[in-house]
Amino acid sequence: MLTRTYRLRMTATGKRTGSRSKGLTYAESGVSIEAGDKFVGSIGSLLRRTHGQRVIDNPGGFAGLLRLDYNEQIFKHNYKDPVLVACADGVGTKVHLAIEMNKHDTVGIDLVAMNANDLIVQGAEPLLFLDYIAVNSVEQDVLYDIVKGISDGCKQAGCALIGGETAEMNDLYKPKDYDLAGFSVGVVELKKATNPMRVEPGDVVLGLESSGVHSNGYSLVRKVIEHAKLDLNKAYRELESDQTLGEVLLEPTRIYAASIVKLLRAYKVKKVISGMAHITGGGMEGNLNRALHEGVDAVIDESSWEVPPVFGFLQKHGNIEEAEMRRVFNMGIGYCLIVRPTFAEAVKRRLEKTGERVHVLGKVSKGKGRVRIKNRSA
Amino acid sequence: MLTRTYRLRMTATGKRTGSRSKGLTYAESGVSIEAGDKFVGSIGSLLRRTHGQRVIDNPGGFAGLLRLDYNEQIFKHNYKDPVLVACADGVGTKVHLAIEMNKHDTVGIDLVAMNANDLIVQGAEPLLFLDYIAVNSVEQDVLYDIVKGISDGCKQAGCALIGGETAEMNDLYKPKDYDLAGFSVGVVELKKATNPMRVEPGDVVLGLESSGVHSNGYSLVRKVIEHAKLDLNKAYRELESDQTLGEVLLEPTRIYAASIVKLLRAYKVKKVISGMAHITGGGMEGNLNRALHEGVDAVIDESSWEVPPVFGFLQKHGNIEEAEMRRVFNMGIGYCLIVRPTFAEAVKRRLEKTGERVHVLGKVSKGKGRVRIKNRSA
Repeated sequence: MLTRTYRLRMTATGKRTGSRSKGLTYAESGVSIEAGDKFVGSIGSLLRRTHGQRVIDNPGGFAGLLRLDYNEQIFKHNYKDPVLVACADGVGTKVHLAIEMNKHDTVGIDLVAMNANDLIVQGAEPLLFLDYIAVNSVEQDVLYDIVKGISDGCKQAGCALIGGETAEMNDLYKPKDYDLAGFSVGVVELKKATNPMRVEPGDVVLGLESSGVHSNGYSLVRKVIEHAKLDLNKAYRELESDQTLGEVLLEPTRIYAASIVKLLRAYKVKKVISGMAHITGGGMEGNLNRALHEGVDAVIDESSWEVPPVFGFLQKHGNIEEAEMRRVFNMGIGYCLIVRPTFAEAVKRRLEKTGERVHVLGKVSKGKGRVRIKNRSA
Repeated sequence: MLTRTYRLRMTATGKRTGSRSKGLTYAESGVSIEAGDKFVGSIGSLLRRTHGQRVIDNPGGFAGLLRLDYNEQIFKHNYKDPVLVACADGVGTKVHLAIEMNKHDTVGIDLVAMNANDLIVQGAEPLLFLDYIAVNSVEQDVLYDIVKGISDGCKQAGCALIGGETAEMNDLYKPKDYDLAGFSVGVVELKKATNPMRVEPGDVVLGLESSGVHSNGYSLVRKVIEHAKLDLNKAYRELESDQTLGEVLLEPTRIYAASIVKLLRAYKVKKVISGMAHITGGGMEGNLNRALHEGVDAVIDESSWEVPPVFGFLQKHGNIEEAEMRRVFNMGIGYCLIVRPTFAEAVKRRLEKTGERVHVLGKVSKGKGRVRIKNRSA
């Protein structure tokens, strides 16, 4: 049965009959009810495939329901002092690229990634996800693809897609345009929530490779494309890939949730992880600092990992300064962990086992809460 | 300290220096960093005023934190089997009206209302709220007013505004345009979650008055304004109000959370409330039915309440059929409760004490899960 909590804003009128009404109707104000109903009907299975045993079926409900604890002995997932962790994010102008490329089944993964990767930084296990999709008009195939991406992302992140809202607003959005926002909630045991005060000099900084540009900096990316008259459909040699530029740029954001949740569960008692950071807008300097307290610095050796070709490509074609690149893009590292030195090697191996590519980026020293990057050229 | 979890998407670059960069920068791609930072700095107190003791201060954090239980004996708010209730909604094209009227401090209340009123239908107590605001460019005053409305709404609904996302996307949104989406999470004890199976023939349907058009049907409202060349700045006699048409239409959606949460707490043990419904798009017929199972109907006497003048005004000027009006608008009743007959009078009095205007709309009979409306004219 379809989870009705996934609603379409403006399914206000009933069926249109053969005889036309004399006066104004909702349908005439530009709202395509049948297309909307068909869409909502089509995505039921995309939602259900993300539902674990925690989700309570709530047909016709006004909101999605998810049990936090299992009373059943078998699950043993009860929280003593649960802290809800919640965040909201969009994918920014990466949606534009998807629209230009007419490829809509991956931006949903980006949407989940931007939220799930923020949640896990706090030590949380992702629980649920809701989306907001705003469109000019309901285009069945496009919307289905967007929700399919969201559903894929939720599967990857281990969270349940329990609702959403699709708004058809033809005055606000141009034909073919759409915007996406996402919202995610996770839970962490109070004692296990990450805390910048835990970070100590000597701690090791590990970096997990990104899958590409992720979902930040696309205003600049698009400016570069325009400025250098780049062709999204061309496979540039400098990209060292068979993929076209458009495909490289649309590569979905890597979701680190499964690896990180598994890692945190492995170290239930010992405090091995001092802090974490999701490298988003602001780059490493603007995000890893959020994991630090004011008495320590993270000293990063930029030569410890290789910057993927796409960043050099963008830098060259946009004539972008090195410092600007570092402030805008992830430069190849999408997620950082700060770990106790004696466990650094073990944590690295565990993460590699769950499919991550991990680099030792540097270490924590006494300082002022800043990230200090030792230049590649230095 | 500012809750940094309220982030501005695209605060990617640092300060712009006097010397201009030769190459492309993020700032040049149309992103106004300083305005953004100033905005995020200005709203700290708007967030903090909604924070109860449950919110954990998380400066620099990647997500908002909220303790679900209090271990402290004094609070006694621990849940045995907590169910998280979550929903997403926007305010639709009512934002357009706010933009046209250049009045931005009430649509935030609508945004919270649309979510909080959905949550409480499930029996939940609202806990937290996050917003997504998408703009063409950061206009300090407009954004401040929007967030002020959201903060006001959160105060009314009793939930904590613990984060949000503001996205500046000048390619997607026209100058002055913006869109809003909101996400809310509440909690309910599993045994106390509402369930359509509880509704029985003989139950009484109570209706709580709306504050006006609320946040549904604005595509049609705007069509009527255009069609009949109505003046938003005029106080029409038919509206029976000193307010202009624009003011009447911008009246924020009533938030029923405080009244309903208080009521549910008053009947902790007895199952007095069989079901509830938030009357949104689809009107009473399309929403009250969601509180019913397939063996009962709700029979509503339309003469049991007075339809506010704004609806007659819109109907007349748009020449809208009666049935269409009922499918699109709340017609004066924004929230319904289905209650056991012996408690109907007591529930009505309790709700009146908390400021609601309550009408006995009808009762439940054997049926097929439908809402049957006895016509005013019948």
